[in-house]
Amino acid sequence: MTNAQAMLDTYPRTFNVDAQLLAATIDVIVDCASTCTQCADACLSERNAGELAKCIRLNLDCADVCTTTARVVSRQTDYDANVTRAVLDACIATCRSCGDECSQHADHMAHCDICSRACRRCEQACRDLLGAIS
Amino acid sequence: MTNAQAMLDTYPRTFNVDAQLLAATIDVIVDCASTCTQCADACLSERNAGELAKCIRLNLDCADVCTTTARVVSRQTDYDANVTRAVLDACIATCRSCGDECSQHADHMAHCDICSRACRRCEQACRDLLGAIS
Amino acid sequence: MTNAQAMLDTYPRTFNVDAQLLAATIDVIVDCASTCTQCADACLSERNAGELAKCIRLNLDCADVCTTTARVVSRQTDYDANVTRAVLDACIATCRSCGDECSQHADHMAHCDICSRACRRCEQACRDLLGAIS
Amino acid sequence: MTNAQAMLDTYPRTFNVDAQLLAATIDVIVDCASTCTQCADACLSERNAGELAKCIRLNLDCADVCTTTARVVSRQTDYDANVTRAVLDACIATCRSCGDECSQHADHMAHCDICSRACRRCEQACRDLLGAIS
Repeated sequence: MTNAQAMLDTYPRTFNVDAQLLAATIDVIVDCASTCTQCADACLSERNAGELAKCIRLNLDCADVCTTTARVVSRQTDYDANVTRAVLDACIATCRSCGDECSQHADHMAHCDICSRACRRCEQACRDLLGAIS
Repeated sequence: MTNAQAMLDTYPRTFNVDAQLLAATIDVIVDCASTCTQCADACLSERNAGELAKCIRLNLDCADVCTTTARVVSRQTDYDANVTRAVLDACIATCRSCGDECSQHADHMAHCDICSRACRRCEQACRDLLGAIS
Repeated sequence: MTNAQAMLDTYPRTFNVDAQLLAATIDVIVDCASTCTQCADACLSERNAGELAKCIRLNLDCADVCTTTARVVSRQTDYDANVTRAVLDACIATCRSCGDECSQHADHMAHCDICSRACRRCEQACRDLLGAIS
Repeated sequence: MTNAQAMLDTYPRTFNVDAQLLAATIDVIVDCASTCTQCADACLSERNAGELAKCIRLNLDCADVCTTTARVVSRQTDYDANVTRAVLDACIATCRSCGDECSQHADHMAHCDICSRACRRCEQACRDLLGAIS
């Protein structure tokens, strides 16, 4: 249980997107960010870490992009649709690349399996939010 | 439900701290970071936002420090106790200041009430982790 | 003088974009991130901070997006064009919105004047890099 | 040339620390953050990347801690000495560990040589700022 929904319920202004959808999306993006940070670290601890450079690099990108995306969509004050859309697009693209890469290692590294599913879920959640705000 | 525990379960090396404690701590820190981002934004949307400058500023600090702390403690590869301890100390100090400030507005702004409790919980979780790794 | 160019000169693999252009772009993005953090704080300290909520919010977004963009474009290992392009697009959109907002306060708040110019320069630098990598 | 000093010159309130010292410190911390991001990526592209896991991990920690430290010290609004001191302490500890690790590879990897010097400089700059605000 996170505070995302409870915090949106206390927001002092109105907002245009469905609060339940937004809170669920924030939770998914935040968890993807953390999962990617952990996956980068787990890859780095594998004996063949040198062969996982591409995966580690995309995990780091995805952790950074998701962290920023969660912050941007969490802010409701004087919402700017152009910023939100472009940031969600970046999150979708990054989750797709990271999810694709992790899925290639999913059968022999459980952290990449979990991470690829976190990226897929985040990509879809960002698409859904993008659809809801357009 | 986040992936923090599941990801730790797949980590390919051993680690010295209890994995359940660590996963629970990561969840609490990550949620505090998000809550502080939302509290800064909610304060900014209040009609008396100008009087909440101190609260907004500490919310921003706490969001940044918690985000970094969650990342550092999530990394288990070649753990450096000096770094982890100093980062946890910074998180404890920042959560204390932010929690103190938010608690002063808790009776008339529900977001500050939730946020002050998130900060208290995070401060305690960081203390517990610090105790477990020392 | 930053280390961006010197660090690129030591990179152990080849990369496809001009190193001088990339180093200059990193410097511009990193400075825009810092400038936006300072502008949000300066706005928050103005006597009419409550009226600057939109500006503060966009400054915070821009600081986050620029920080992430600088990290993503700094990484050369197994470069993913889809990620880089989408992240640069997000940086361009955010710098445009933040620069537009700050420029409206530029004549009576010097920090917004400096910040609007930092955003314009960053927007252009990201466009130039995007052109060079396409 | 960054905007750090120019932005401090426009800050609408007074502040207790010397503005020139603060601006110079921000520049050093921000550059250390970027240098560590680039060093982690350069290490990841080395043929023996798997042996550099500790260095990469500390580079990532140092990039995160320096990014957060630069943000916290850049904020002057309702300055909280307890937060600033604890965050500077964390930055000092992280720069020391990262600088120590990078210095061990400095003779055969130029990026680690540059990065170790960036960390030493940042550690000293944080100590100087800590001395000035105590």
